[in-house]
Amino acid sequence: MNQRTINPWTWQDQLGYAQGVLVEQPQQTLYAAGQGSMDSDGNLLHDGDVAGQAAQAMDNVETVLAEAGMTLADVVRYDIHATDLQHYFMNGHEQVAKRFAQAGNIPAGGIATEVPGLAVPGMAFEITVIACR
Amino acid sequence: MNQRTINPWTWQDQLGYAQGVLVEQPQQTLYAAGQGSMDSDGNLLHDGDVAGQAAQAMDNVETVLAEAGMTLADVVRYDIHATDLQHYFMNGHEQVAKRFAQAGNIPAGGIATEVPGLAVPGMAFEITVIACR
Amino acid sequence: MNQRTINPWTWQDQLGYAQGVLVEQPQQTLYAAGQGSMDSDGNLLHDGDVAGQAAQAMDNVETVLAEAGMTLADVVRYDIHATDLQHYFMNGHEQVAKRFAQAGNIPAGGIATEVPGLAVPGMAFEITVIACR
Repeated sequence: MNQRTINPWTWQDQLGYAQGVLVEQPQQTLYAAGQGSMDSDGNLLHDGDVAGQAAQAMDNVETVLAEAGMTLADVVRYDIHATDLQHYFMNGHEQVAKRFAQAGNIPAGGIATEVPGLAVPGMAFEITVIACR
Repeated sequence: MNQRTINPWTWQDQLGYAQGVLVEQPQQTLYAAGQGSMDSDGNLLHDGDVAGQAAQAMDNVETVLAEAGMTLADVVRYDIHATDLQHYFMNGHEQVAKRFAQAGNIPAGGIATEVPGLAVPGMAFEITVIACR
Repeated sequence: MNQRTINPWTWQDQLGYAQGVLVEQPQQTLYAAGQGSMDSDGNLLHDGDVAGQAAQAMDNVETVLAEAGMTLADVVRYDIHATDLQHYFMNGHEQVAKRFAQAGNIPAGGIATEVPGLAVPGMAFEITVIACR
């Protein structure tokens, strides 16, 4: 598979995402469920702590990717839903951006949106990813 | 096409979705518009009844899939938007989960999120799907 | 690549989207970041003007597509997030629908949803697209 980052501008470079990722004929595409701050029994962790929730959600993204034989380097797009989006950007987004940076990958940014509620009361953050290899 | 369910955990098994679906080189991918509780003329049905809306929306998902030569068994990811998410989980989600179960398919769960409003006043529920064959 | 419009009904014809797009073995798939009314330095334009924001966002979609060697004709699905969805439909959606119409393309409609907030304060509209060629 060939993968190319699409960035007509530079302002997004410090925000941890790309304006697009162009994928050519992947062998595999992973459609992953949204990941929040759940433990392995499905209980919410880090209630009230968006940085902790983002870090745990990224752990879970990695676990799902690993089960599919993939890593964070294979993610082509991620979407963010947060119950307080500006609070997330100031306190939680670094947990997401640095993990992709450590994997040497800058996925397309999809949507980052504020929402009134997520699947489980207390969830402040959820990330969905699509990965290709 | 080869399709593999990705579930590093078990807690999601009773919720009607998988943590991921890994797709290998599909012949066809269907990007479907979000489906709500519309009749064939585009009028909203089941105002105030989220279970009725979810059932009708699933009928419409099946109609769109059929027009593309597909069935619910081909859906790899679904996303839920509801104006009252906890009310939907308690009263409407069974309509979604059982239809996929009847088709012998457990798609990736995408995002399930609460939203202040959908395209048509009175819409309480909308589902988007991606299907591969 | 072969691409087929899926429309079991006709009521959506005047709304600028299709119920589905069926894609066969694309050479390339572009996962694009959500586009809002940003200038090339990342500053928000047209604060308080949803039609202006939609037009500028569509310019940006075209710029991202062009960087990937694509045009609006290659978009297979678009999703709309707006802070006032009915206001957007009445005042901004024409800017989106006419641009796709001019490109001779009717993508799948994905989700159109109201949200309390988007990435930058003042953003009233954001569009995400997936394109295939």
